[in-house]
Amino acid sequence: MNVESDAQELVAAVDLGGTFTKLGLIAPDGAVRAETRVPTRLTAFTDGDGGRGTVEWLGEEISAFAAAEAEAIGVRTVGFGVVVPGIVDSASGVVISAANIGWTGGVELGDPLQARLGLPGGIGHDVRTGGLAEWQLGSGRGLTNLLFVPLGTGIAAAVIVDGRLLEADGYAGELGHVQVPSAGDQQCACGQVGCLEIVAGASGVVRNYRRLAGATPGDEPVAAEEIATRARAGQPEALGAFEIAGTALSEAFVIALTLFGPEAIVVGGGLSGAADLLFPIIDQEFDHRLTFQRRPKLLTSSFGSRAGLVGAGLLGWRSVTAEAQ
Amino acid sequence: MNVESDAQELVAAVDLGGTFTKLGLIAPDGAVRAETRVPTRLTAFTDGDGGRGTVEWLGEEISAFAAAEAEAIGVRTVGFGVVVPGIVDSASGVVISAANIGWTGGVELGDPLQARLGLPGGIGHDVRTGGLAEWQLGSGRGLTNLLFVPLGTGIAAAVIVDGRLLEADGYAGELGHVQVPSAGDQQCACGQVGCLEIVAGASGVVRNYRRLAGATPGDEPVAAEEIATRARAGQPEALGAFEIAGTALSEAFVIALTLFGPEAIVVGGGLSGAADLLFPIIDQEFDHRLTFQRRPKLLTSSFGSRAGLVGAGLLGWRSVTAEAQ
Repeated sequence: MNVESDAQELVAAVDLGGTFTKLGLIAPDGAVRAETRVPTRLTAFTDGDGGRGTVEWLGEEISAFAAAEAEAIGVRTVGFGVVVPGIVDSASGVVISAANIGWTGGVELGDPLQARLGLPGGIGHDVRTGGLAEWQLGSGRGLTNLLFVPLGTGIAAAVIVDGRLLEADGYAGELGHVQVPSAGDQQCACGQVGCLEIVAGASGVVRNYRRLAGATPGDEPVAAEEIATRARAGQPEALGAFEIAGTALSEAFVIALTLFGPEAIVVGGGLSGAADLLFPIIDQEFDHRLTFQRRPKLLTSSFGSRAGLVGAGLLGWRSVTAEAQ
Repeated sequence: MNVESDAQELVAAVDLGGTFTKLGLIAPDGAVRAETRVPTRLTAFTDGDGGRGTVEWLGEEISAFAAAEAEAIGVRTVGFGVVVPGIVDSASGVVISAANIGWTGGVELGDPLQARLGLPGGIGHDVRTGGLAEWQLGSGRGLTNLLFVPLGTGIAAAVIVDGRLLEADGYAGELGHVQVPSAGDQQCACGQVGCLEIVAGASGVVRNYRRLAGATPGDEPVAAEEIATRARAGQPEALGAFEIAGTALSEAFVIALTLFGPEAIVVGGGLSGAADLLFPIIDQEFDHRLTFQRRPKLLTSSFGSRAGLVGAGLLGWRSVTAEAQ
């Protein structure tokens, strides 16, 4: 990441998560010049005021962060981008729903936040804007057909086909909710059963591991990262948890590449740190499963867990450029 | 279909199938002014001459048909469009593979046919161009996000997202080869097991019916259309065959709409004549399965089995317009 950029103008980027919300100041080249995180004020989303509390909270966080950093590193904030998990219509700036942050009604964020901050800005989907970052500045640079799949608590995909990022009014790319045989009939938070993200997200790997290890609710919690370390050391239950995740991912990837024909799949999010465990499983499954389909390269993301934040910055810069024209 | 159009200039359209190849003369508004079909000369595809025999055969068929019809209905052929089942790169006019017509090597059709006929023309995928016809002139008119799914011997989808038809170098939309639970571990001609088209294509319905009815190889053959008639009369084995097909379609449609978010699914091909049997099953499955996804309308195609031919005509008119500019 280039932190030596001498740009005097930056945009504020916000990546809204279920527990923490990341804030950053982003240069036009995607460099993250400042970064922090704050607890997500979940009550803001559920107070039935049509989103006014959310806009107020976001406005305050952005203003305070931008003011403090402007003083510290001597820059000016000229726009903003906010990215949200869920069904987001970026054209209208409306979040249609976002179950992970307790949001079910449609909430308009774009225009009210522009008014509150007095800056041009855009609202986007965390994964699609992360895909934009990877495509324009990261691992997917130069490709025309590309999937970006961050493996976090949840899973979704940014889908680029024929050099365009698919939106479908916010409904495109919900790969985590494609049903795969490896997820059996386990219940998903979305209401369906057998969704990919139940077994292949970070929480899924933890759940698989605890089940294989015969863990009981009272046992010490263990993070996906630690399970990866144990798998590398050859522990059978840890290897088993990644075997399930990798197989489930290959099942979903085969579906996605039968429908989208990507040249590469860029895997991101926290679990991409375990690519050394997952990619060989996926590669082996591709050997067995693919017939007429184009075989995609498997790549890890350039921006890791910052992809959404960098993408939010790109979104902000787009708004600034659009306003200047 | 408007056959009263007074256009003096038409394009020749060819829809290449596994058994028969359809030829037509198409007006700019998509009206089919003349139509015939000839047996597909499959040997042309397998004689290892890099496609020269195919180009020669297609050139002869188009010239002869256009000349005869020009005399009969007094029109002039100003371009051509040829559509092929398989993996087709319409930008380069190259058919990468087309297993249904015995084609495995890459064959260049566009430039050689243009040279042979002395006319501007284009090469496309039968289903994608059929989708173009339904989207621009038929059931999908005015929509921005749309799936067109013709149910013939095989199944593929034309996918329109954000007002654009997806290509992915010819790899987009192979919905018939998405694996669905209802197809179990039955072997598909593509090399995979459990593909949608094994149980939900016209041949799949026939196969399901024969299996449920305990038919033996010596029994009288029965067409999908006749099975539909028997299902309407309440015959249990016929109803069972459509139950399997409808359930399998709903499984694949749920995947497709989780990834593409279409506003409507236009069902075409021969089996769309059994929409009265299939749609209620799919609707019921949607009731059970869909949670956060946008629910698409189910529509039947305007052009039926002619969608590919009309699409080939549109492709031809695009080439004519492009050359005129």
